[in-house]
Amino acid sequence: MYKKFEKADYENILKFISKDRVYYGEEITEDYCHDELGGAYGKPDIIIFVKSTEEVSAIMKYAYANNIPVVVRGSGTGLVGAAVALYNGIMICTTMMNNILELDEKNLTLTVEPGVLLLEINKYLEDKNLLYPPDPGEKSATIAGNISTNAGGMRAVKYGVTRDYVRELTLVLPNGEITKVGGKTVKDCSGYDLKNLICGSEGTLAIVTEAVLKLVPKPMHSISLLVPFDTLEGAIESVPSIIASRAIPTAIEFMERETILFAEEYNGKKFPDTSYPAYILMTFDGSTKAGVLADYEYVADLVLKELGAKDVFIVDTDERNEMVWTARGVFLEAIKGSTTEMDECDVVVPRDKVAAFIKYTYEVSEKYGVRMPSFGHAGDGNLHIYICKDELTDQAFKKVLEDVFNDLYNKAEEFGGKVSGEHGIGYAKREYLVRTLGVKHEIMKGIKKVFDEKNILNPDKVI
Amino acid sequence: MYKKFEKADYENILKFISKDRVYYGEEITEDYCHDELGGAYGKPDIIIFVKSTEEVSAIMKYAYANNIPVVVRGSGTGLVGAAVALYNGIMICTTMMNNILELDEKNLTLTVEPGVLLLEINKYLEDKNLLYPPDPGEKSATIAGNISTNAGGMRAVKYGVTRDYVRELTLVLPNGEITKVGGKTVKDCSGYDLKNLICGSEGTLAIVTEAVLKLVPKPMHSISLLVPFDTLEGAIESVPSIIASRAIPTAIEFMERETILFAEEYNGKKFPDTSYPAYILMTFDGSTKAGVLADYEYVADLVLKELGAKDVFIVDTDERNEMVWTARGVFLEAIKGSTTEMDECDVVVPRDKVAAFIKYTYEVSEKYGVRMPSFGHAGDGNLHIYICKDELTDQAFKKVLEDVFNDLYNKAEEFGGKVSGEHGIGYAKREYLVRTLGVKHEIMKGIKKVFDEKNILNPDKVI
Repeated sequence: MYKKFEKADYENILKFISKDRVYYGEEITEDYCHDELGGAYGKPDIIIFVKSTEEVSAIMKYAYANNIPVVVRGSGTGLVGAAVALYNGIMICTTMMNNILELDEKNLTLTVEPGVLLLEINKYLEDKNLLYPPDPGEKSATIAGNISTNAGGMRAVKYGVTRDYVRELTLVLPNGEITKVGGKTVKDCSGYDLKNLICGSEGTLAIVTEAVLKLVPKPMHSISLLVPFDTLEGAIESVPSIIASRAIPTAIEFMERETILFAEEYNGKKFPDTSYPAYILMTFDGSTKAGVLADYEYVADLVLKELGAKDVFIVDTDERNEMVWTARGVFLEAIKGSTTEMDECDVVVPRDKVAAFIKYTYEVSEKYGVRMPSFGHAGDGNLHIYICKDELTDQAFKKVLEDVFNDLYNKAEEFGGKVSGEHGIGYAKREYLVRTLGVKHEIMKGIKKVFDEKNILNPDKVI
Repeated sequence: MYKKFEKADYENILKFISKDRVYYGEEITEDYCHDELGGAYGKPDIIIFVKSTEEVSAIMKYAYANNIPVVVRGSGTGLVGAAVALYNGIMICTTMMNNILELDEKNLTLTVEPGVLLLEINKYLEDKNLLYPPDPGEKSATIAGNISTNAGGMRAVKYGVTRDYVRELTLVLPNGEITKVGGKTVKDCSGYDLKNLICGSEGTLAIVTEAVLKLVPKPMHSISLLVPFDTLEGAIESVPSIIASRAIPTAIEFMERETILFAEEYNGKKFPDTSYPAYILMTFDGSTKAGVLADYEYVADLVLKELGAKDVFIVDTDERNEMVWTARGVFLEAIKGSTTEMDECDVVVPRDKVAAFIKYTYEVSEKYGVRMPSFGHAGDGNLHIYICKDELTDQAFKKVLEDVFNDLYNKAEEFGGKVSGEHGIGYAKREYLVRTLGVKHEIMKGIKKVFDEKNILNPDKVI
């Protein structure tokens, strides 16, 4: 189907890419054959660390002319195999395109290259009174990786998701043509919205080589509340009522004691309290102290008096803040460290269905005798549920995963939810997505064909 | 190319649509042959006032099987001919699908039928402490019309545009199939983003028959400032500096004395002040009085001391608010009333280019000897510029329009702007859009074909 990548192709590519930025053959390590969760495997024939849009264009022109598959990789922090070279061929690595190009204070935008890390953006903006709101747990992901999965993160309750903060993208199309979608303008009704089509398309439609991000003024005041409950369902059930109270927190995370203990061990740092089975962690932010105070006092009162909270711990010092959010940041790693292997379910359901869904995971866990710790974003309905291999055999785990995913995704659909909230479909979740699409599957396949009629860009991902 | 709509088709349609909701032949008045600006003209063979998704589906199945073009119309408040039946055929009118179906306070969503008017949504939410933020001037537009043009309105500076508040859409595809895109969930990375592709597609890809809208808690406090300047450029030039100050107003509108005088005459109501040549009108909102106060005092000080404002009028009573915002609401009608005929340029440019663009309109106005009043959204870069026919002959006006649009759209492109901010492309601006698209034109045509391979749904619009 595809042309095999040969020595001659390598030599041809060296004509326009400097050799010190190319790995070929035995230089390619296992690290580049999988992503963070390791469910998908594929070894690229060549890895090219690109430096410019023009280089990406030249590579795509070559690949297009020669029918060679191409996959783009950022930091490799993905969880669904989207950046794995299933069909070998060319891997374009964006990590050397990591410059912040422009801060435009008049339009409140930041222009970046695709390989800039989230933590670098945060650091750059730190002293500028500006905020790039999307806040996924994985801060070492690249911005283009975040754009590719439309990452949401913890502040989505109040601020929305990555696509809401992408103004313009420079793209290289599968045939090597360069174009821009979106713009620095706030409004736009000038033809079909291609910018949002690219956001969340997991590198299957075009390659992002530059992004103009929208910034907001940094909220000057912020405070977190850690609220313990007797049960996880009780914790989660409080959330729709908090939202209905109109005092919208920036973030509402839920967590179980077990996960917190893993994180304590992983970080070697104590959490403010671990005496209850479950917690919600909320943040409030705003431009005035009075506004933030009014909101959190109102909500603290509400959860204590009406929603069954056992206590309210105010997280108002830098030290405490660091304690809880550092723990929250390593949940994935901590759970990973607690088992031999795991896979993840990143469903999203309407926020009034989160508690019922979590309850359902208990049933599923019992039914198949498999450990399934979870944490996630109670405020926006996005759950991260981990199916742990522990002592299971490879074969037994494979079967369990199949059964568990079937049950979970069916239930999510029943609840009006979706297969993935922010980690994407990639290779691992494709089957489950396709099942739910109906006529939309044909439309999505049609769109893929419009962008990539030769199917050379990240083939067999998403749809 | 298309089948001519005949008496037999009319009779076939009456088999599944009640006759009292159908206009045919001579029952069709001129009102349904154009939109608000009248630049495009086309008489449908039949107009059907639909009542349900299933009826729309049945009509599309019939049209698809018989190759009859279909156009969908809401209130007919469009400005670019998007809802005009250029090829005759069937017009589906959504104004009888005007029920509010569900307020979901736990997920903060409102589910509505397509023909619900903006003003009905506002009224419904009035006493519920909730806000649907998009705020276009034309409150008698239908919600599906707003979705079709991704309308922005006055609060876009702070709150974003229509697409940001559309969670889920029920669609009828050109072949009559029914599907849903998006969902009640906050996050989503489950395949390509079809929801945003439909928003702003001006009825060319699918028919919206139900929408789930996102709501936000209503800001409890709000205040407006009316700030006079010696020149319009001076007024507009202050805006990027206001934004850079991090105190983001909800709305920043600019207006000239001449337009205000038209509006006073049109409304028969006085404006608080008309002694200066130009004004900006800003609103600040927030959850606490202190927060709003701090923001507007800071900005009032900034415009007076550093940005050349001549005064600051605080619009803090209901009466004054009514005075200024009612005037703002009728600018389009008022300018229309001041001339014999007009056409509009709805460009959007980065907000730091607005002043330079307005200055350019003065040059163009002088160059062609044509009156070009303007107003618009200084905060988000979206300008509404009216080219007035006044005493020109039809032929001279046609030529002037062509020349003026050419100049304006070329300049917008030079500034990194777009042909349309929120009124869309429709029929009238197609040529100007296509010019700027490059390779994106082929992609958009491909997408149109994926949805509508027979090209029966609103043909020859947008692209």
